[in-house]
Amino acid sequence: MNKGHNSKKVGGVAVDQLKSIIARVEKLEAEKAGIAADIRDVFAEAKGNGYCTKAIRTILKMRKQDASEREEQENILDVYLNALGMLPLFEGEGEAA
Amino acid sequence: MNKGHNSKKVGGVAVDQLKSIIARVEKLEAEKAGIAADIRDVFAEAKGNGYCTKAIRTILKMRKQDASEREEQENILDVYLNALGMLPLFEGEGEAA
Amino acid sequence: MNKGHNSKKVGGVAVDQLKSIIARVEKLEAEKAGIAADIRDVFAEAKGNGYCTKAIRTILKMRKQDASEREEQENILDVYLNALGMLPLFEGEGEAA
Amino acid sequence: MNKGHNSKKVGGVAVDQLKSIIARVEKLEAEKAGIAADIRDVFAEAKGNGYCTKAIRTILKMRKQDASEREEQENILDVYLNALGMLPLFEGEGEAA
Repeated sequence: MNKGHNSKKVGGVAVDQLKSIIARVEKLEAEKAGIAADIRDVFAEAKGNGYCTKAIRTILKMRKQDASEREEQENILDVYLNALGMLPLFEGEGEAA
Repeated sequence: MNKGHNSKKVGGVAVDQLKSIIARVEKLEAEKAGIAADIRDVFAEAKGNGYCTKAIRTILKMRKQDASEREEQENILDVYLNALGMLPLFEGEGEAA
Repeated sequence: MNKGHNSKKVGGVAVDQLKSIIARVEKLEAEKAGIAADIRDVFAEAKGNGYCTKAIRTILKMRKQDASEREEQENILDVYLNALGMLPLFEGEGEAA
Repeated sequence: MNKGHNSKKVGGVAVDQLKSIIARVEKLEAEKAGIAADIRDVFAEAKGNGYCTKAIRTILKMRKQDASEREEQENILDVYLNALGMLPLFEGEGEAA
């Protein structure tokens, strides 16, 4: 982002530099929006092929997690669900006797 | 949140205490949702009375800002808009000659 | 929100009515912020008592779901995880033979 | 996304197809994250050059709006601010006499 010594100034602002900042961000935002649209297309295609996009999003989130961290998290969740009687298998045992 | 020494434990978890945490959060979340609905009602009423809710939201945001900070922000914005030729009044002067 | 026939107008806007809209929203938003703070307190207390707040949030989300819908969702997720070889129990069976 | 008639199935799920969906989304999300990082770099550079990034973000938002819509929005805002006595220039006139 060169300041350009002979760049025109208005109100102390280097006009070309400000315009360049804005143009660069707008270009990048347009690219980002394009990729977001591509992602929506992949999900729409998956849905069209009968896949459950909610489950796919969960898997994408899980894959971002470190495997051991994920496993630990699932174990804690099971302990709590069991304590609350929310685990079908452990219904009887979990609930207050 | 008393632990209650004779509170039943499942998998090392004090069942009553966990249930109380969940119940308290759910109660508070229900109250919060109720108030969010009340806010929506006020905006719906204002809209019904012909008010522009977008402008009202802008004013609510402005009122949260410290007045001098807001003024400084508006001055900077005007300088930039003028430099970019986006200020109607200063169109001619702002733009590169 | 009574318009009040003798309410002062500025630029065609019933000043008192606009002020009342803003005051009501600000009051409700303050109440909502108060409850949000209470929720944070409950989570902080739970954390202080050694609970995993992430697991508690997951349970709160699960409890908002219809039980059968939740079960169906978990079944689909297991089928996909198994197909991708991401289920520890089914590692051998899931992966390409 | 061809189904591929001889594609291996687990639990009724075409494994390769599911893997391809996940791989494509992950690739696109990585690209999107890269561009988001580029945008952050431009703002960091602008900040380093003394620009107010908040004002730049406001201008980017304004440029996404249709000019006449933006102008109408600003006029309504001024009318309301004036009615509430929040416009410095019109302080005296706006406020209840």
